[in-house]
Amino acid sequence: MTEPFSPALLLQQVLDTFEATPDPRLREIMQAAVRHLHAFAREVGLETDERRAGVQFLTAVGQISDEVRQECEMLSDTLGLSSLVETSSTPDGATLRTLTGPFYAPGSPPREYGASMVERDDGDPPAVISGRITGAGGAPIAGATLDVWQNASNRLYAIQDPEQPRFNLRGIYRSGADGRYELRTIKPVSYTIPDDGPVGKMLESTGRHPWRAAHVHFLVQADGFLPLTTEIFDADSDYLDSDAVFGVAPELILDFSRGEDGVHRTTFDIMLRAA
Amino acid sequence: MTEPFSPALLLQQVLDTFEATPDPRLREIMQAAVRHLHAFAREVGLETDERRAGVQFLTAVGQISDEVRQECEMLSDTLGLSSLVETSSTPDGATLRTLTGPFYAPGSPPREYGASMVERDDGDPPAVISGRITGAGGAPIAGATLDVWQNASNRLYAIQDPEQPRFNLRGIYRSGADGRYELRTIKPVSYTIPDDGPVGKMLESTGRHPWRAAHVHFLVQADGFLPLTTEIFDADSDYLDSDAVFGVAPELILDFSRGEDGVHRTTFDIMLRAA
Repeated sequence: MTEPFSPALLLQQVLDTFEATPDPRLREIMQAAVRHLHAFAREVGLETDERRAGVQFLTAVGQISDEVRQECEMLSDTLGLSSLVETSSTPDGATLRTLTGPFYAPGSPPREYGASMVERDDGDPPAVISGRITGAGGAPIAGATLDVWQNASNRLYAIQDPEQPRFNLRGIYRSGADGRYELRTIKPVSYTIPDDGPVGKMLESTGRHPWRAAHVHFLVQADGFLPLTTEIFDADSDYLDSDAVFGVAPELILDFSRGEDGVHRTTFDIMLRAA
Repeated sequence: MTEPFSPALLLQQVLDTFEATPDPRLREIMQAAVRHLHAFAREVGLETDERRAGVQFLTAVGQISDEVRQECEMLSDTLGLSSLVETSSTPDGATLRTLTGPFYAPGSPPREYGASMVERDDGDPPAVISGRITGAGGAPIAGATLDVWQNASNRLYAIQDPEQPRFNLRGIYRSGADGRYELRTIKPVSYTIPDDGPVGKMLESTGRHPWRAAHVHFLVQADGFLPLTTEIFDADSDYLDSDAVFGVAPELILDFSRGEDGVHRTTFDIMLRAA
């Protein structure tokens, strides 16, 4: 306690205080977080009122959150952090991982090969999604589970919307012996992430919009393989270039072409990586 | 949407989406925050479960917060961000600024020159703090207000503790025509910041302690001068080298020497900067 205050000395004191962290990985993460936090504040010359506004913003993000409303997850999504972490963790050669988003819920019902997960007819264009699940070498994976979820054309997922049947546009499918799967749903519909809270205010005050490109979520699991969370996007959709949560990658944009029977069909082959 | 996913491309997309921010300062802050957030995640190779744990931690920080319990402020304090921002903003030649901390409350009562702000006698060693308030050139500042607050020897501030008189160890003093002020209180006492929430868990899991070095807070204001929030620390105190919120600077450590009358006395001269 003899050197006068300086930002560099302060940073060193904070880093030193984390030196005794028993878990080396936690120590690494905390020290890196502190370094980047201080570097950010010094780079922009963060002022008292600005720091306080940030504290108030983060407090509000936590306060609005509950089991369904995951505002902090949305903050991570809208800053691109979720996509960065998830997509960067994609194993070589496997289908691209994307963020899970705040609307996944476990407990969807099992559905037969080719069955529909539409539990309420809202008059939306029907769609069939099918494909093959394989390992990296192209060998089919039988008995993989595909947990699929999608928003309705009123823009809400069933878990957000007490008016929808509980399992509407949710279902767990299985691949057959040849690795093939098939499911029936509706052509995906764009929606806005919940924008009546602090994250919505952040989007509005920065001139951003809350829209996501139209998509369908998949969580694919098979014994002996790494689980895969991904999405497919409708090539027809708006917002492919400005998805509010940065989930879109060109590898995941598919044509949902309309057949003569009025059914849109697309093929989504999925490659898993051995565990 | 033709280039395949890469972390660098994703970062550029996120930065681009903030380009339309109407307020240039907000744009600068958001873009810098995103760059540092992504750089942090890439540097440590942040994994899915770790990102999720971070989201859950920040959510819990907001959820435990209310008007009195300011957990997110404590997080900023315990990572050294508050000290960095406040102390770096000290004008040249003025008394060092420190963090306000979560226990300031407006509305303290005015007290006479030299009066005591002790409203309950807990048998603590008495102390007198006095000094001169001047401008940068040494000219005395008359009529400056000193809003002073301090914790009791049970470690709690009055606003945290319904058992204490509401204005115990709180008061607003004024400097005289010669710039001098004097107040009577107790010798400051170390305390722990509230550690039964997520920030306490963070401290515990990183091997840190929640103690603050013994101190007294000041908010000094005078017409025509920049307001000053600062603290003085008792040179006798433990934790001067490991204050949980990094508030201690050697310039602010003072001797509270004990007189023959049993009263501890210290001199704290305060230099304000013209607005």
